[in-house]
Amino acid sequence: MKLLRLFAITLALLAGGLAWGQDKVVYHISDADTQALAGLRNVRNHLDVDPKAQITVVTHGNGVDFLMEGAKDKNGSPYAGPVSALKGRGVTFEVCEITLKTRNLKQDQFIQEADFTPSGVVRLAKLQHLGYAYIRP
Amino acid sequence: MKLLRLFAITLALLAGGLAWGQDKVVYHISDADTQALAGLRNVRNHLDVDPKAQITVVTHGNGVDFLMEGAKDKNGSPYAGPVSALKGRGVTFEVCEITLKTRNLKQDQFIQEADFTPSGVVRLAKLQHLGYAYIRP
Amino acid sequence: MKLLRLFAITLALLAGGLAWGQDKVVYHISDADTQALAGLRNVRNHLDVDPKAQITVVTHGNGVDFLMEGAKDKNGSPYAGPVSALKGRGVTFEVCEITLKTRNLKQDQFIQEADFTPSGVVRLAKLQHLGYAYIRP
Repeated sequence: MKLLRLFAITLALLAGGLAWGQDKVVYHISDADTQALAGLRNVRNHLDVDPKAQITVVTHGNGVDFLMEGAKDKNGSPYAGPVSALKGRGVTFEVCEITLKTRNLKQDQFIQEADFTPSGVVRLAKLQHLGYAYIRP
Repeated sequence: MKLLRLFAITLALLAGGLAWGQDKVVYHISDADTQALAGLRNVRNHLDVDPKAQITVVTHGNGVDFLMEGAKDKNGSPYAGPVSALKGRGVTFEVCEITLKTRNLKQDQFIQEADFTPSGVVRLAKLQHLGYAYIRP
Repeated sequence: MKLLRLFAITLALLAGGLAWGQDKVVYHISDADTQALAGLRNVRNHLDVDPKAQITVVTHGNGVDFLMEGAKDKNGSPYAGPVSALKGRGVTFEVCEITLKTRNLKQDQFIQEADFTPSGVVRLAKLQHLGYAYIRP
């Protein structure tokens, strides 16, 4: 019976492995000008159709700009509104700390919805290895 | 012997899990102007070198345009020809229904080779969770 | 006891399957002008934060240009230096052979750091099926 229990555990682990990343998605934004507006719209539509999706938006390089205090899109609308609304629906927004260093930016220049990660690209790889799907808007 | 059979099933499932997505690929097109020509060429080359590849092209936003009736590339060649040829080789082309709604388009404005999916981005995530590789042309 | 050993093997295979792609990443470059500089910087930062990462850069289309002899970035700096430095840290750079044929290029026009692969897109899919994460700079 011990063996049967071991079998059950193995099968459960296997099933878990397959189900694992279900509904997890990482969005990659490295250029706010060309990607932020579309990306935020994509994420909103994503949640509208799949409300259980766990979405992380990883930003680096010029992609971090839309998460800075006072940032506005090309129509002059502040990004903070839609970002805050998505944060309220469980989306996390992460800013690359190497970018901060390279571009001489400080964490307090970003809106409070922003989280930070040591390296955007390492984070993108790690999340995929944890079963996240990857979408580049 | 029952246990041995269970083992065999477990191993088969495991092997199946690993082999699972083999040769499955999703191409992501969200801007026809910059991606459609290259994307169609990529897909053709893909099949030439890996004829067993199961390829799905997911389009949304401005990416759906090359699948509309009468759409032409920048050289004035209709997209319908290459799309139809790839469809004949097993490639599926999917159009995001949220895009239809947002851009006020109707299904009958698209060529008959086009299929439809409730949400392009949700579909991109789901296919990856089913083992599809992701390529953004 | 035979059965127990079988169980152990199954579990080891399973764990191996999950750990499998750990730290493996493929970078996709299809346009050198817009991606090469950022991509090389991304890869360097990636290795700085995750030195054990196994990184492959797959190039095709106009993405192969930065690996050609004498290629320079928009600031006039040769690409060969940073490419060679990253190669020294274990990064591999692969050029699509279909692109060579299509663009009438020869292997000896490329720097010695470049490797070749029959098809860039097939390679991108295969590496992901082997557990590589995908990043498009």
